[in-house]
Amino acid sequence: MPNPTAAMLVIGDEILSGRTRDSNLHYLAGQLTAHGIDLQEARVVSDDAAAIVAALRALSSAHDHVFTSGGIGPTHDDITADAVAEAFEVGIDIRDDAKKILLAFLEARGAEPTPARLRMARIPDGARLIDNPISAAPGFTLGNVHVCAGVPKIFEAMVANVLATISHGQPLLSQSLRVERPEGDIATPLAGLAARYPTLSIGSYPFSQGGVFGANIVVRGHDGAAVSAAMIELGGLFPEATT
Amino acid sequence: MPNPTAAMLVIGDEILSGRTRDSNLHYLAGQLTAHGIDLQEARVVSDDAAAIVAALRALSSAHDHVFTSGGIGPTHDDITADAVAEAFEVGIDIRDDAKKILLAFLEARGAEPTPARLRMARIPDGARLIDNPISAAPGFTLGNVHVCAGVPKIFEAMVANVLATISHGQPLLSQSLRVERPEGDIATPLAGLAARYPTLSIGSYPFSQGGVFGANIVVRGHDGAAVSAAMIELGGLFPEATT
Repeated sequence: MPNPTAAMLVIGDEILSGRTRDSNLHYLAGQLTAHGIDLQEARVVSDDAAAIVAALRALSSAHDHVFTSGGIGPTHDDITADAVAEAFEVGIDIRDDAKKILLAFLEARGAEPTPARLRMARIPDGARLIDNPISAAPGFTLGNVHVCAGVPKIFEAMVANVLATISHGQPLLSQSLRVERPEGDIATPLAGLAARYPTLSIGSYPFSQGGVFGANIVVRGHDGAAVSAAMIELGGLFPEATT
Repeated sequence: MPNPTAAMLVIGDEILSGRTRDSNLHYLAGQLTAHGIDLQEARVVSDDAAAIVAALRALSSAHDHVFTSGGIGPTHDDITADAVAEAFEVGIDIRDDAKKILLAFLEARGAEPTPARLRMARIPDGARLIDNPISAAPGFTLGNVHVCAGVPKIFEAMVANVLATISHGQPLLSQSLRVERPEGDIATPLAGLAARYPTLSIGSYPFSQGGVFGANIVVRGHDGAAVSAAMIELGGLFPEATT
């Protein structure tokens, strides 16, 4: 059975203006790879309802899972929950279970349950809550879309909670070799190797460091024996390289 | 006249597997913002021809400019140039001007012009070359798509070359205020401010540091007087905050 597939949708003007450097994509990519879920695509859109809805519809119909990050706080620019409800054509309102979680957290800190804060208890109809162990305001899963916070620590905790509830595939195995030769020198033997191992993905990632041109060659696949065999051949092709 | 719009397409399995952390999006976002070009969307796709072609068609028809990063080296997994030719339905072959640049660079280093290296001179019909001052192999512009290398130093040099040739808009002005209060406390006055300045984008970016919950409030717009006026009001709303 092929591995489940996934896409990520990062929501936020701050990424596209260059103000903030997104770190959630890199985190999610590593987690999904370790759990045998193939991340096939990622998109970044601004805090614009039409853009979010269009991306949600495209990604949720093309992949087994969609993870979103950002736009679920209490301020006027947090419109992700409403966009998800619109994308799935369901209603959205403050929900008792989410409200109870928020009120308990606010009470413990002596904070007021302002209307803005209670916006964070707005959950689309039919969604399951995702626990937020850091600041209480929950994420949620609707259909195959997992809606997570943008703050990295909260995003990471929510992803861990989602990964505990969904089916995993075979983890992608990966080995790499560092070759200090320009890619132009290694391309032909590498293409031959890739042709001999059609079930593996063999990538070449060039670098230049201190005037040295080289490449990291990465062999990935679900079949450990094939990955090992390709690595042995690779070592024969480039005997000076280092793993 | 509204500012030109742009999208970015990052091409590479290594980003989606979590092996590599993309840095080109953050760089491009900052450069475009400084030059008055609105980056509205970014996508990351794998080294898959169909995925690249579909993304190129969608992005190039929706935005004034598309910048791509990755997939133009000499190895078998470098398929961006062919995908661009397919997306625009034009031919592609080794082109004399690009070949001449590559041969001069290789000759100066005593490197062989292997067939793999000469693949980097494959340029779609009708494209303009983008100079690569670091490793010679050029990028190219076809229609509104600017095809750049993935190696950050080369990407950055190519983006600078493209920005010297295209029309800029009004730079987006941005000022920010750091408020050490949870977003739930600031959301209501902030929504009022946003409603009073409809031409500005007012964003709130929460953080938690050492147990303190707070937010950076960012006011962005093309009208410097409006940005300044909103910042003065903001300072009145949150007198304890720091810029």
